[in-house]
Amino acid sequence: LAADGLIGARVGSGTVVLSRPEASPATDALPWRQLFAADTNLSPAIRDIIRAALRQDVIPLAASEPSPDLFPMEEVRALADSIFERQGAEALRYAAVEGLPALREAIARRLADRGARTTADNVVVTAGAQQALSILARCFVEPGSEVAMETPTYLGAIQAFRAQGARLVPVPVDAEGMRVDSLEQTLARRSVRCVVTIPNFNNPTGAVMSLERRLRLLEVTRRYGVPLIEDDVYGETWLESPPPAPLIAGKPADHVIHVGSLSKALFAGLRVGWIAAAPAVAERVALIKQTTDLFCGTFSQWLAARILEEGVFDRHVARVRPVYRRRRDVLVAAIERYAGRYLSVNRPAGGSFLWCRLADGLRARELLPYAGAAGVTFVPGDLFSVAGNDEGGFRVGFSLPPEEVLEEGAKRLGGAIEALASRRGVVSAAIGAPPLV
Amino acid sequence: LAADGLIGARVGSGTVVLSRPEASPATDALPWRQLFAADTNLSPAIRDIIRAALRQDVIPLAASEPSPDLFPMEEVRALADSIFERQGAEALRYAAVEGLPALREAIARRLADRGARTTADNVVVTAGAQQALSILARCFVEPGSEVAMETPTYLGAIQAFRAQGARLVPVPVDAEGMRVDSLEQTLARRSVRCVVTIPNFNNPTGAVMSLERRLRLLEVTRRYGVPLIEDDVYGETWLESPPPAPLIAGKPADHVIHVGSLSKALFAGLRVGWIAAAPAVAERVALIKQTTDLFCGTFSQWLAARILEEGVFDRHVARVRPVYRRRRDVLVAAIERYAGRYLSVNRPAGGSFLWCRLADGLRARELLPYAGAAGVTFVPGDLFSVAGNDEGGFRVGFSLPPEEVLEEGAKRLGGAIEALASRRGVVSAAIGAPPLV
Repeated sequence: LAADGLIGARVGSGTVVLSRPEASPATDALPWRQLFAADTNLSPAIRDIIRAALRQDVIPLAASEPSPDLFPMEEVRALADSIFERQGAEALRYAAVEGLPALREAIARRLADRGARTTADNVVVTAGAQQALSILARCFVEPGSEVAMETPTYLGAIQAFRAQGARLVPVPVDAEGMRVDSLEQTLARRSVRCVVTIPNFNNPTGAVMSLERRLRLLEVTRRYGVPLIEDDVYGETWLESPPPAPLIAGKPADHVIHVGSLSKALFAGLRVGWIAAAPAVAERVALIKQTTDLFCGTFSQWLAARILEEGVFDRHVARVRPVYRRRRDVLVAAIERYAGRYLSVNRPAGGSFLWCRLADGLRARELLPYAGAAGVTFVPGDLFSVAGNDEGGFRVGFSLPPEEVLEEGAKRLGGAIEALASRRGVVSAAIGAPPLV
Repeated sequence: LAADGLIGARVGSGTVVLSRPEASPATDALPWRQLFAADTNLSPAIRDIIRAALRQDVIPLAASEPSPDLFPMEEVRALADSIFERQGAEALRYAAVEGLPALREAIARRLADRGARTTADNVVVTAGAQQALSILARCFVEPGSEVAMETPTYLGAIQAFRAQGARLVPVPVDAEGMRVDSLEQTLARRSVRCVVTIPNFNNPTGAVMSLERRLRLLEVTRRYGVPLIEDDVYGETWLESPPPAPLIAGKPADHVIHVGSLSKALFAGLRVGWIAAAPAVAERVALIKQTTDLFCGTFSQWLAARILEEGVFDRHVARVRPVYRRRRDVLVAAIERYAGRYLSVNRPAGGSFLWCRLADGLRARELLPYAGAAGVTFVPGDLFSVAGNDEGGFRVGFSLPPEEVLEEGAKRLGGAIEALASRRGVVSAAIGAPPLV
């Protein structure tokens, strides 16, 4: 593996385990690096995670993507063909900036079913939740604007807001979700442009915000008049019981901006996500989207609309839930078996990943090259950290590989940790089962 | 038409003829307008053009989109089904940030066929050319950076670069394309971050850059060490004879960044465009794209790859060429017949629109409500202007409606111009056939 130069020994050079050699300046006609706009926030982390997930020769515990083996392909194929039959060429021409009316309706209906007072006019279709976050950053952030963001959190949200020049104010997460007491202190002292949270199955900790915490968060943000951005991409991925109602279902919740996506509960390849918000926000979001990429793929939007309308989505999430529950349990057990001496691991009630914490003296970044050499990937915790810590944490996904591969991945990971621990002189740490978040 | 409140009498309120009432602040929980980041460059222009094109009750001469009637639907449908057969679930999962390898290969091969020394490593797939331009703006522009851009030009390019805070330095276009003598003076005096041009069928003038001009543009930009962005979305839409080789085919042309798309020559609904550039630029572009929307739709990319590989694209452009040539001729003749007393119109050798210039004393913005009342749309020239002029120009598209509808559209437009001219007291102007660009 190390032979191809992509995986290997360069400690700290990669974000997952892979890092391509940089383009050689010698071949360039222009000194490109000097010509690029200064942008200190560019990170290859997500690119590397996806790259690793697409490789055949590495076990991709870095990924948090749903398993292609489980996609409802027969139904999707039939729907695709029916779109060619019914919509024909209309499904391949320009679509409205705000999104296909049928899809906006279907999304609004789902949110209404979950208690939100949402109509199609509130919904703008985006290229996944990543574009939703990126557009919302541009909507609310000027260089130097302060944004309150829970930590740890989705690395793509950190990137999107920093790319707009936001100064992120970290708000800690515990087992009940964002610490609203801490947020309230922040709001009292600072001029915050918006608050960003993942109330359902926080990425990477898996924490679910309790109902009490939700109500308090709604009250505090409303009182301070601060927009509240709810990233709910994992809302439908619960494995035990449904989480509390989304924040946008609060009454009144007109200051809540809801972000959703099909990418985690169904599949990511259509690039269909959305923002649901007050009409003035939806209008602004659409204008920004227009400058960014005009509109979302028409055929993809038709397919997403039909998948939601025809019940394919609902049947799918019900069908895969027990499969992912088993995968989660298999990975938890295997990690405890192979690496339990050196880390603690949680058992989240949904999402698609576990959050691990290494014993004192071991850092996830240092583990990367060992894992690479062993043929397994993970995501080091510092990438999720708004505050710049979480160096002992790392995320492993349970949704993509089948059970036997998860088992093998945990074994490889255990070997890598053993190797690092032996190098660092860390002897089996007495790690109990601490609250991980 | 005026009854629905969307089309009508509010002079200057719409960009095409349509303008939705703004969301009522009375219903908002928060004073959203005060909370939004300052962004004076947001314009609803493209949204309104697309909206108008999707209406059944207005003749959409504002549009420059290809005609759904002509899409090769049988072939596309068969390819889509073969992707479900062959790639299956892989076609719906995450894809690499840079794009699907098969599609990057197919794009690189097309560019190589046109003389560029391009491999798949040079290519990054984007959500249409709009995203390519938006990403390139972020790649090269910091607030206040100067960018040399030909004028008039694509309004989406103006929006994308201004959104990054660029100060646009206008470079005039004549019948041979960008005035390189003017550009050279600009480059000698100013520190320009990049140059942006549409060498083939400039939007909106239809101008094609001559070979001599291309060589000189390459030489000048190379000498000054300035990145040269070539927006070639109309390159394959020639109606008489192929334009000269793209700028990226120059040798060496490593400072050229090529932007392309399937949207104008085939259809826009897949959102497939691309950037082809030096490896360091491709790497930077991918990192920015990752933060923006992670990757392009996987199924759309597979479909685009197969459309290119299987010759569907080439057969399509050859088949539709005579159809669009007739539509162009029909619209030119009809506009001369119905409105020739008040304007001059060109006959471009490709693209999908005509450029009209009104007689002195008439402004395109003032024509908007008259056209709206008559049931026809167009795009006023000031939207394409980097310099803030071209108020007497406007663009009408010939690609979307069939011949009889083009004829009727020109008739309505003629009536609207008559009404405006009579109101303004402009009597039939003696307009010859001046060079329009």
